[in-house]
Amino acid sequence: MRSRQIDYTDGANRFIGEFFWDEGQTGRRPGVVVFPEAFGLNDHARERARRLADLGFAALAADPHGEGRVFDDMASLSPSIQGYYEDRAGWRRRARAGLDALLAQPEVDGGRVAAIGFCFGGATCLELARSGAPLSAVVTFHGGLLPEMDGDAGRIAASVLICHGADDPLVQDETLKAVMDELRRDKVDWQVNYLGNAVHSFTDPLAGSHGIPGLAYDEVAEARSWTAMRNLFGEVFG
Amino acid sequence: MRSRQIDYTDGANRFIGEFFWDEGQTGRRPGVVVFPEAFGLNDHARERARRLADLGFAALAADPHGEGRVFDDMASLSPSIQGYYEDRAGWRRRARAGLDALLAQPEVDGGRVAAIGFCFGGATCLELARSGAPLSAVVTFHGGLLPEMDGDAGRIAASVLICHGADDPLVQDETLKAVMDELRRDKVDWQVNYLGNAVHSFTDPLAGSHGIPGLAYDEVAEARSWTAMRNLFGEVFG
Repeated sequence: MRSRQIDYTDGANRFIGEFFWDEGQTGRRPGVVVFPEAFGLNDHARERARRLADLGFAALAADPHGEGRVFDDMASLSPSIQGYYEDRAGWRRRARAGLDALLAQPEVDGGRVAAIGFCFGGATCLELARSGAPLSAVVTFHGGLLPEMDGDAGRIAASVLICHGADDPLVQDETLKAVMDELRRDKVDWQVNYLGNAVHSFTDPLAGSHGIPGLAYDEVAEARSWTAMRNLFGEVFG
Repeated sequence: MRSRQIDYTDGANRFIGEFFWDEGQTGRRPGVVVFPEAFGLNDHARERARRLADLGFAALAADPHGEGRVFDDMASLSPSIQGYYEDRAGWRRRARAGLDALLAQPEVDGGRVAAIGFCFGGATCLELARSGAPLSAVVTFHGGLLPEMDGDAGRIAASVLICHGADDPLVQDETLKAVMDELRRDKVDWQVNYLGNAVHSFTDPLAGSHGIPGLAYDEVAEARSWTAMRNLFGEVFG
């Protein structure tokens, strides 16, 4: 397994991603952009990208905030997140820059790419799909999903899998319902998996360390959602 | 692959099930009761039991109505279904008789049994779990689920997987929500998979032939739900 730093830009900001691939493999392979939790490109996202490379994919752990910034607490992080929510077009450009960086790697088969994301990153990959990006699949894990924007109708080309902690207090039922109605209306190929007994951040072993209520690791939900992702990749990548 | 007829009783009725097992396999193996769609023990249920035997399980396709009765249309079927709904204790005894018949087979490891069901049979296997039956897992496919009865709290021992067509017009949102709240309250190990673009009866290739609106086969949803079931069996049976 190897990794290398990938610098990329959306025209306004410099991002520092990390790309993982299996050097024992030859030829182009399906690629996956991994959008991290709100804290930034940390070990959680790197580890998921590494696991994807282990499975035979090429994976770019994207840098959401630029310059590789990683936050430790919600207080310092909130203004950035608020900024993305208020400029969703800009947020999507950031995400698209990550996808384009993945597509530029010689190990990647540009016809077979997907995006996954965790928490804020789950929201990010759905935003990317809504922008009409050429993705085969997007998979959100405890994604902090937002309803669509005006003009999004009919633009999702990807198969969508939403892995949702059934007790997640940070995602409102009505928001998830609105997303499901959007996917339904557009006849997107979609699935929503409600994972019982799981709250927000169920894939993150350090979820409890942030001191934020409603965040907790759940080994069972993590394993099931990862398996569901693998199954979907098996379908769309053949 | 072999099958044999299994006669069993709940004390009041005679049932004629069909048991499938791989004769090339030795020793006791996990067992699965398959509860058919409302029409009765037909080829749809037999085929699923056969597939389970192919996968190394022993599977009993249960006889819901007794005497092996199979209905062709909803009009003749409705009074029977209504009767089960009005006597849920009796319905559960019928289901339990099927489970006991499975447990009595020498090929079955009695410590590792599950139940699956389709449509009315999905409801049946949830009823069985609510009666406190010693099941490792129950999996419902487009189950016509009912809310719990008084006194059911805390009795589900099984891991529960509900595979639900996201456009199923026969299952009310509030019913599914009530079931999820029940599972949540009792801290059951549970999952609900919403399968996009699927309606009722999505596993049944002949669903369209019954002339009932809201029933349709969906190859993608069938494959995904079967895979989800296999994954859960992999977890609970080791």
